[in-house]
Amino acid sequence: MLELLSEHQAFGGVQRFYRHASAEIGLPMRFSVFLPNVAADAVASRGANADPVPGLFYLAGLTCTEETFPTKGGAQQHAARHGLALIAPDTSPRGAGLPGETDAWDVGVGAGFYVDATEAPWRDRYRMYSYLVNELPALVARELPVDAARLGIFGHSMGGHGALVLGLRNPDLFKSISAFAPIAAPSDCAWGRKAFGHYLGGDVRRWADYDASRLLGAGGVAPHAQPILVDQGLADAFLHDGQLLPEAFEAACAQAGQALTLRRHPGYDHGYYFVSSFMGDHIAHHAAILNARSTGV
Amino acid sequence: MLELLSEHQAFGGVQRFYRHASAEIGLPMRFSVFLPNVAADAVASRGANADPVPGLFYLAGLTCTEETFPTKGGAQQHAARHGLALIAPDTSPRGAGLPGETDAWDVGVGAGFYVDATEAPWRDRYRMYSYLVNELPALVARELPVDAARLGIFGHSMGGHGALVLGLRNPDLFKSISAFAPIAAPSDCAWGRKAFGHYLGGDVRRWADYDASRLLGAGGVAPHAQPILVDQGLADAFLHDGQLLPEAFEAACAQAGQALTLRRHPGYDHGYYFVSSFMGDHIAHHAAILNARSTGV
Repeated sequence: MLELLSEHQAFGGVQRFYRHASAEIGLPMRFSVFLPNVAADAVASRGANADPVPGLFYLAGLTCTEETFPTKGGAQQHAARHGLALIAPDTSPRGAGLPGETDAWDVGVGAGFYVDATEAPWRDRYRMYSYLVNELPALVARELPVDAARLGIFGHSMGGHGALVLGLRNPDLFKSISAFAPIAAPSDCAWGRKAFGHYLGGDVRRWADYDASRLLGAGGVAPHAQPILVDQGLADAFLHDGQLLPEAFEAACAQAGQALTLRRHPGYDHGYYFVSSFMGDHIAHHAAILNARSTGV
Repeated sequence: MLELLSEHQAFGGVQRFYRHASAEIGLPMRFSVFLPNVAADAVASRGANADPVPGLFYLAGLTCTEETFPTKGGAQQHAARHGLALIAPDTSPRGAGLPGETDAWDVGVGAGFYVDATEAPWRDRYRMYSYLVNELPALVARELPVDAARLGIFGHSMGGHGALVLGLRNPDLFKSISAFAPIAAPSDCAWGRKAFGHYLGGDVRRWADYDASRLLGAGGVAPHAQPILVDQGLADAFLHDGQLLPEAFEAACAQAGQALTLRRHPGYDHGYYFVSSFMGDHIAHHAAILNARSTGV
């Protein structure tokens, strides 16, 4: 069951914030939803009778919440125009009360890395992968006018990593994929090694299932049927720190035969001024794929 | 002199944050500037050699800072398209150290109400009116490629009040005016009475210079040469609380012969989901006036 926390009319649709009891995580989880062409004052019906629209999941980066994307992403205007719903989950469980959970900004709260942890103390609660594959899409499609057969996924930084991994491993669930400045080869960067060490243990072979470049490069997954769009700013300090490694993902795509549009933008950094600048292109990328399916099959 | 605190490329232009020593306020003040069509990596020149563009000042609401508008307003894309600069000051002095300055969210820090205070302890520092009329526009036009002859002003809530008052009282400085959900008759609402009582004292006749509805209605100013655009959401809790009073401003405009487009939007509330939904229309309103002047005179 969904608990509606708040809603705000926006661009002719409605931006909502929900909480629900997650079975996968065993804690309350929050997420935000933008529904196009649904008036806020029609909340009584929850829009359940509306024709379902395609749904695009957005995974946010380190330290973010379900509120980051709706407040800073500038996506609603584009989703309204293309007739897409936007769904943004939180970036980790909250309130698990695990030792050390809030000690670092890049592991624990706000830093779930979209994996199912196998190691103590994380493994019972830090199950963002299963939450986002097995629970949230079905819940959204059941409770809201979102078409489960027309879902896409994208994200930023840690969430770009999540979008690539979840999309590549679940092509029947996520029909379209894109990313802004993704952590594209987490096994080979400091952020990924630290987080994966905590969540998945020290055996790096077990990390490959959550590493987009290794998944594709080692043939762990087949290429996705649709081209992947990735945007990367060239003034991004984390790019220069070696945290993002788009060139590794580019090489893996080439090796696997994965169609990729990787755009490198001089002058742009890692933040939401960059993300929002290219948001319209990303929504259009997903809409072209997801809306085309409405006339097929 | 301007101290550049940070900059971020956005929508083909650059979003900058500055600090400077304000003579009017006697403290350091911060403001943000979006410059269209200026690459971030051209910072060395600060764009000073670029052709000046029109400048649009945005005044934010209670509790906001110079960062609210660039992060939540969604305005840069429209300013980039129309070739306008966007300038957003802070909402009060910071660090004055006055007794009671941080006790309330609607008086003191974050709540300067765009007046020149006459009462103790505020009067030495809380001079946002003079700062925004006599200091900041000249500074921006001197240090950045902004055309002092083509400035406009708009704002939200307390900042909508500020935009109406500053624009109506200074039509030669601000050639275009608009507002989102302004506190349109502050002498007649609880927020305004509280703040004006602190800043201006108990004699309500002295409040009229900072009350857009009284300024126009009592003939304190002539109608502005250009139509004023105001958007108001009808699900705005502060509207229903009687804090905004657009009908008072509407009546004053009618009495004074001020051209006004007041749009009432069912379902929209007071926040930035509302503001951003109509941002494109506001930027277009200002651009039509300010860009037209580039071919005149």
